[in-house]
Amino acid sequence: MTANKKLLVLPGDGIGPEVMDEVERVVEWLDAKRRVTFSVERALVGGSAYDAEGTPLTDATMAKAQGADAVLLGAVGGPKWEKLPFEHRPERGLLRLRKEMALFANLRPAQVFEPLVDASSLKPDLVRGLDIMILRELTGGVYFGEPRGIETLPNGEKRGFNTQSYTTSEIERVARVGFELARKRSNKLCSVEKANVMESGVLWREVVQALGDKDYPDVELSHMYADNCAMQLVRAPKQFDVIVTDNLFGDILSDCAAMLTGSLGMLPSASLGAADESGRRKALYEPVHGSAPDIAGKGLANPLATLMSFAMMLRYSFDMDEDAALIEDAVEKLLAKGVRTADIRLEGRAPVSTQEMGKALIAELET
Amino acid sequence: MTANKKLLVLPGDGIGPEVMDEVERVVEWLDAKRRVTFSVERALVGGSAYDAEGTPLTDATMAKAQGADAVLLGAVGGPKWEKLPFEHRPERGLLRLRKEMALFANLRPAQVFEPLVDASSLKPDLVRGLDIMILRELTGGVYFGEPRGIETLPNGEKRGFNTQSYTTSEIERVARVGFELARKRSNKLCSVEKANVMESGVLWREVVQALGDKDYPDVELSHMYADNCAMQLVRAPKQFDVIVTDNLFGDILSDCAAMLTGSLGMLPSASLGAADESGRRKALYEPVHGSAPDIAGKGLANPLATLMSFAMMLRYSFDMDEDAALIEDAVEKLLAKGVRTADIRLEGRAPVSTQEMGKALIAELET
Ligand SMILES: CC(C)[C@H](C(=O)O)[C@@H](O)C(=O)O
Ligand SMILES: CC(C)[C@H](C(=O)O)[C@@H](O)C(=O)O
Repeated sequence: MTANKKLLVLPGDGIGPEVMDEVERVVEWLDAKRRVTFSVERALVGGSAYDAEGTPLTDATMAKAQGADAVLLGAVGGPKWEKLPFEHRPERGLLRLRKEMALFANLRPAQVFEPLVDASSLKPDLVRGLDIMILRELTGGVYFGEPRGIETLPNGEKRGFNTQSYTTSEIERVARVGFELARKRSNKLCSVEKANVMESGVLWREVVQALGDKDYPDVELSHMYADNCAMQLVRAPKQFDVIVTDNLFGDILSDCAAMLTGSLGMLPSASLGAADESGRRKALYEPVHGSAPDIAGKGLANPLATLMSFAMMLRYSFDMDEDAALIEDAVEKLLAKGVRTADIRLEGRAPVSTQEMGKALIAELET
Repeated sequence: MTANKKLLVLPGDGIGPEVMDEVERVVEWLDAKRRVTFSVERALVGGSAYDAEGTPLTDATMAKAQGADAVLLGAVGGPKWEKLPFEHRPERGLLRLRKEMALFANLRPAQVFEPLVDASSLKPDLVRGLDIMILRELTGGVYFGEPRGIETLPNGEKRGFNTQSYTTSEIERVARVGFELARKRSNKLCSVEKANVMESGVLWREVVQALGDKDYPDVELSHMYADNCAMQLVRAPKQFDVIVTDNLFGDILSDCAAMLTGSLGMLPSASLGAADESGRRKALYEPVHGSAPDIAGKGLANPLATLMSFAMMLRYSFDMDEDAALIEDAVEKLLAKGVRTADIRLEGRAPVSTQEMGKALIAELET
């Protein structure tokens, strides 16, 4: 059988490479055992790319990403590169990928795995069964708005500035994804902005409401200010189903929601572009957690978020729901059995290493 | 004795007026019993001002605020006014006060009251004894940056835009307050931005670091990205002492921190301007909670946050630490005795009304 899916793997920095090794283990298993095979290419992104290639993302890697059927990314960044000039920072590599691949829809499920209910900071009753989807706009807003920079004022002071900007069509296309997601879930969409303070939020609210009225009257739409949303996520997260919000609010709120679950080491994400004529979308998958430089290279990292991101890829990019479910079920079983890395370790039970977790997953898949 | 402190009271919307009545009860008690007296003037702000006076803040009220020794505000906003054009919204009244009084330093303590530990969504161990101070920049950033607005593009689409902007001196003056606060507390300051994504954050970090190196080498300074801060607040809030951050991040993070405490109905805030030659600062005090239109006028609201804001005023504006402590101690005692409004009611105990709480406080002060 020849490889029929082109996968670009970008391990990135910190724990990225070691968790990615465990994903490749599963890819090989799928290649051998299941109907689809993958050709996997690795490339650099982030600080490791800067170190080796002088830029956080080379044009060659960018071209490979554009040509791939899907991209799987580990994580980027770390203190080692924090002093670099802005344009060389690890994050620029990731941001360039998002922007040039036009991945405007970032899906960040925040889900509590039953065996991990007690790992949450929140009281178990508040989070048991939690399953919300944060949909974050990913190619607009203050992340990319112009003008931006640091200038020197006539009086010698400096001024740092950025531009928050959203057009009707930018808002509409991500809102549409939100409504569609809501329809497949509990049919509730909450749109989040600061329309009481920002004009960009006023337009955001108007456009989402108009789209809802026109095309999705069946979806229960509500609006909430970002500060209140942060509160409500802590107070009673289960009130939400799908939340759609802009790039910056989405960055903060999705991290907050992820942490609520206590399962940060478990959470995947998908960043999707527009569908082409054949219905295919450009797509990049990555764990919600960061590069965790403090534990990098020690075999302590939890590879499950990246593995779950790979499963999400199978589902969203390749319609391989069955294979995705195989992996997700195997993960749930391992957790229930107490096979855990240090971040989610069970009291009185030795944690397993990154590699051991990968191997245990293969063993579970084999059964 | 003639009144020697000029206090402007702006009850605002929703539960604002009824909680303010209870503060006035305490003001009267102080007038009668203690060494300082107050002349209290009331005026309108927010939706109620718009309804009665056609604008969320009249020039006359603005002038009164400028002339007062301190301003105490209830809360503004509500669904009734959400459809108004941007410049008539209740929030504009509050924002104008902040801007024209130049109240750049917003102190938002997030504190857990021992009798309310169980009211938190978080596990008791994570929040018991929690006492952090969020210092939010209040007159800059995307709240006030120009250009801003909604424009129509050549292709007929609309575009909403706002400007995030900070100058060296804007950052420095609020950071200085942060370092000073840290010195009076546990000597730890965490500065929060998105320097990995925004140039305004790059400048923010630089300026805070330089000020620390120069004038506050004794204060332990750290930097954190806003998304990570949201996570860390949920994961382990006690790691923080003072957090200093910009207007927008401060809006979200302080609400998140407030909700962690489970004592939202208890939390005060102070917004301070620069000190003049005599060391006096313009100041506005308000509860962290909002106008809660759903329970307005029903006598259900908890007046303690506004009362604690008044106590904060005694401390920060009038150096009346002893009187402030009298009120704060009385509040703690009431809580411990189980005298609680509905939001923090004790199981098996009937909650008290807004008025009953105010009266109970006076009774407690009398003992
Ligand atoms: C690494 C950083 C640029 C990025 C962001 O701010 O978007 C990260 O925090 C995320 O949420 O994916
Ligand atoms: C009412 C609103 C304008 C205000 C803000 O966004 O600053 C409020 O949320 C606050 O935090 O004081």
